[in-house]
This record gives sequence, C-alpha cells and structure tokens, in this order.
Amino acid sequence: MDGRVTEDQAREWLTVAVAEARLGLAEGGIPIGAALFGLNGELLGRGHNRRVQDGDPSMHAETAAFRAAGRLRGYRDTVMVTTLSPCWYCSGLVRQFGIGHVVIGESVTFTGGHNWLAEHGTGITLLNDPQCVRLMTDFIAARPDLWHEDIGE
Amino acid sequence: MDGRVTEDQAREWLTVAVAEARLGLAEGGIPIGAALFGLNGELLGRGHNRRVQDGDPSMHAETAAFRAAGRLRGYRDTVMVTTLSPCWYCSGLVRQFGIGHVVIGESVTFTGGHNWLAEHGTGITLLNDPQCVRLMTDFIAARPDLWHEDIGE
Repeated sequence: MDGRVTEDQAREWLTVAVAEARLGLAEGGIPIGAALFGLNGELLGRGHNRRVQDGDPSMHAETAAFRAAGRLRGYRDTVMVTTLSPCWYCSGLVRQFGIGHVVIGESVTFTGGHNWLAEHGTGITLLNDPQCVRLMTDFIAARPDLWHEDIGE
Repeated sequence: MDGRVTEDQAREWLTVAVAEARLGLAEGGIPIGAALFGLNGELLGRGHNRRVQDGDPSMHAETAAFRAAGRLRGYRDTVMVTTLSPCWYCSGLVRQFGIGHVVIGESVTFTGGHNWLAEHGTGITLLNDPQCVRLMTDFIAARPDLWHEDIGE
C-alpha cells in the first residue's frame, strides 16, 4: 500500500468489483470483476470477464473496466480494483498506462504480475478477501477447462 | 529469432499488419496494425488500433488481432505480427497467452516489452522495416497528443 488508498476505502471499492464478478457468474461466464476508480472515489468504469458471453478472449475484467472508462488523459490518480491478482496481460495494461494503484481481492487461487507492478512503482493493496477466494475456488473446481483457457494454460 | 519463422515469412506476414496500419490511418486513427498467424501460415485474426475510431483505449493493434481470432486453446504455435514494438499491455498479452513468436515491424520510434518477452522465451523477429518507421515518424510528428495518449504518457 502506498498510503494513497486506505484499507477501508479498498474494501468499499472491492464490493463493486465483486458485484461485477457475480454478474459474470450469473451470465454463465468467468467470475472475475473489476472497476476503475479515481482516487477521489469517482467510479470511472466497471466490467467483468466476457470470454464466454461475447466469445471475446481480450475482455478480462480489468480490460473491460478500463474500456468502460473510455479515453482518459493520465491514469496516475486512478485505482484499478479487481477481484483477482491481475494476469500478465492486465498487469501490462496497468504498467503501460501508469495506473497508480491496484486493489486486489485475492491472490490465493492465482498470482499474476502484481509483485512486478510493485517493483515498478504501482501501489498495491492485497486484501485476500474470503468471498473472492470462494468465488474462484468454486469456479475453478466446476470449470477447470474454462479457467485454463482464460489464462492461456 | 527462434528458427521457427524465417525472415522471408516474417516480411510476407508483415504486409498484412502494414495494410491494417494504413487502414487505421485512412480512418483518422493511430497507424498501428497487427495480425495473428498460425505457424503454418493460416491467418487467424487481424486488426488495428481503434482508440479514435471506437473511442476504445483497450483496442491496440495486437489486442484487436487477438480478439478477431476468437477463442482459441493454446497459442504456442501462433505468431503475433505487429508494425511496432509491443507496449507493456500488448507484451503482457503475449506472455500470458504464451504466443510463441512475435514479428515486429520496427522498434525505432518506440520500444515496448519485446526484450522482456525474449527473456521469457518468446521468439522475436525484429525487422526494422523502413515503411513502418515512416508511418510512425510521420504520425508522431502530426499528432503527438494522440500518440502520447495511446501509450499513457
């Protein structure tokens, strides 16, 4: 944590990402959700993984939230909130656009590039939220094929 | 180069990415194009940067080509061909999905993560193609604002 995001704030923002993940699950999709907030609390964009729903492998939760926020100039004062540790694809997004901080629901079921991001100056808040762990644990057990497809394994 | 893609093959495939870049330019967009090929030469998907055209910052050339290829199981025997060195976002895509090889038109006007990819086992063919350099040089001179927006600077 880099001091710009409190744990209370992170947990509040995470509820939006979790709601997105649950929406994706209800649609028969992969239950990962994300939201892009301004440091001031403004919700800029939200979304969830759309591989199944749209047949679109490029729409991970984080890219969907980033896309929903539209064209912005500068991401330093934005926070990407995601239910799961961001994969390399989504970590690359954060690094390229200089998103200042990432809030992560959990990294128990999957660990992507968040340590790499921290090394390059991104603020990281890792919550290890039990409901996020449950969402992914249940999903991976039910649909290992889909999960491995989504992370290219 | 990892021996799986010849320079002649790389140059032939690059013509598809360049055609995409020129299409994007003609649409008033950022002139970066890409295509995803199978090692056997099959064209799986092609696309170009769509920031301006769709107001979509998530559609870089490589993500557009990846998206156009639809859902696939396994990318080891695929080749991402792009007119410009892939930014961190697109390099992360290549790493996460294990795309086996990347053909790059040029890295003179911008260098992204292709050395990082090479360190992690991706085959890289860097062509430094003069027409690709010209496309970006002219574009950056004409629209520096748009270019910096697209790479988050």
